[in-house]
Amino acid sequence: MIDLTLIGIGTGDPEQLTLAAIRAMNAADLILLPRKGEDKTDLIAVRRHICASVLTGDTRIVEFDLPVRRGQGDYLGAVQDWHDAIAACWAEQLAVHLPAGGRFALLVWGDPSLYDSTLRIAERLRALGVDLRVSVVPGISSLQALTAAHAIPLNALAEPVVVTTGRQLRDHGWPAQADSVAVMLDGGCAFQAVDPAGVRIWWGAYLGMAGQTLVAGELTLVAPHIVEQRAALRARHGWIMDIYLMRKEKG
Amino acid sequence: MIDLTLIGIGTGDPEQLTLAAIRAMNAADLILLPRKGEDKTDLIAVRRHICASVLTGDTRIVEFDLPVRRGQGDYLGAVQDWHDAIAACWAEQLAVHLPAGGRFALLVWGDPSLYDSTLRIAERLRALGVDLRVSVVPGISSLQALTAAHAIPLNALAEPVVVTTGRQLRDHGWPAQADSVAVMLDGGCAFQAVDPAGVRIWWGAYLGMAGQTLVAGELTLVAPHIVEQRAALRARHGWIMDIYLMRKEKG
Repeated sequence: MIDLTLIGIGTGDPEQLTLAAIRAMNAADLILLPRKGEDKTDLIAVRRHICASVLTGDTRIVEFDLPVRRGQGDYLGAVQDWHDAIAACWAEQLAVHLPAGGRFALLVWGDPSLYDSTLRIAERLRALGVDLRVSVVPGISSLQALTAAHAIPLNALAEPVVVTTGRQLRDHGWPAQADSVAVMLDGGCAFQAVDPAGVRIWWGAYLGMAGQTLVAGELTLVAPHIVEQRAALRARHGWIMDIYLMRKEKG
Repeated sequence: MIDLTLIGIGTGDPEQLTLAAIRAMNAADLILLPRKGEDKTDLIAVRRHICASVLTGDTRIVEFDLPVRRGQGDYLGAVQDWHDAIAACWAEQLAVHLPAGGRFALLVWGDPSLYDSTLRIAERLRALGVDLRVSVVPGISSLQALTAAHAIPLNALAEPVVVTTGRQLRDHGWPAQADSVAVMLDGGCAFQAVDPAGVRIWWGAYLGMAGQTLVAGELTLVAPHIVEQRAALRARHGWIMDIYLMRKEKG
């Protein structure tokens, strides 16, 4: 039996760990850390730093090379294949490091419920014959890091919020029935695809990390600045993680 | 100068506090805890327990009676008046306990960004002449406690999610363009107002507390059970806090 805990670790600052997350990390026999290729060495470094900051016992840390996702063609099909490949990697590592079962933990950026596929990949482990029990420890999501850094609420008073992706925003426009839209997983400034009149934006990159960068203002005014900043930061770091909230102002 | 920190404390279990939240609580000169009337004595008890669990220094804890919201007539107008009254209460307490300024903290259920008005009420303090700086420490929201308890993702793969209120769901029906809808602040089982065909629901009450209760299944099958459970739990505790996620199944 593999007792898998998905642990939300927030956005990189060990201070954003909950006591429950720290306890779950220390209770694990094995934590697997993915290496994502040269461009994103900052990310494995952050995970290593989090482990070094809070682990006090004999939890074993094993790094593995995350399979590369095919970039072309059918997006959802490529994602499914990629998830299969990751599940196969985990199964290999479990066979080596926990052959008799045990407590296995994965550290998930932000919160395991929000635009993260670790839960879905874990389901594939069962299909590979792993006898699995899954539990989740929630973590501070990048959306919360964004609103906290700007000291703003996510929703307007008693109003709905849509949480969506850059792809959805580009393909379907501003969602009906909501004046507040939070956008994650945006590969390229999809806010340029909406009518900016009367819209405010609160943008953040590398939230919770040393390079945290914030921009806020009327979308008409700040959009070009964000596009430029994003390109410059991406060039400097080799990668970028950014999200934003947009709100239509009343009146 | 009042340096106000809004600290997200999660849903009641001190284990859900982040290290940053614990640090911010200990850095405060004054924490105000609201008393909400006899029905909700559990809630003040949970806040007291959280303070007792993590405070190690000389932070002063002061309890005050939260003004009562008018229940009738114009909903938004009543909320605005209530927020004015709460800001006036805080200002009174600050004048007594921090006459020369200092570090003031408020403990917010869940996360200060999500269906919480503490940020909006804090803005009113400025209008009352308080020289204010506001910062936010994010916390685990009840939505995250819900998805973690059920070990499910909030969104379907690469799909949007609408986060809304019971009132919005009743008045406007299932939101367009989203198959996943999370409902908060629902005073009375608004899921009964939507067409249940092909919809799954994951419901939770008293999340993260001793009385945590979960129900999940096809909405057609479990809706009557949730209605019944909710009424029974509310009668037993004198109050209830519950939320749910609904998802339309594909195909």
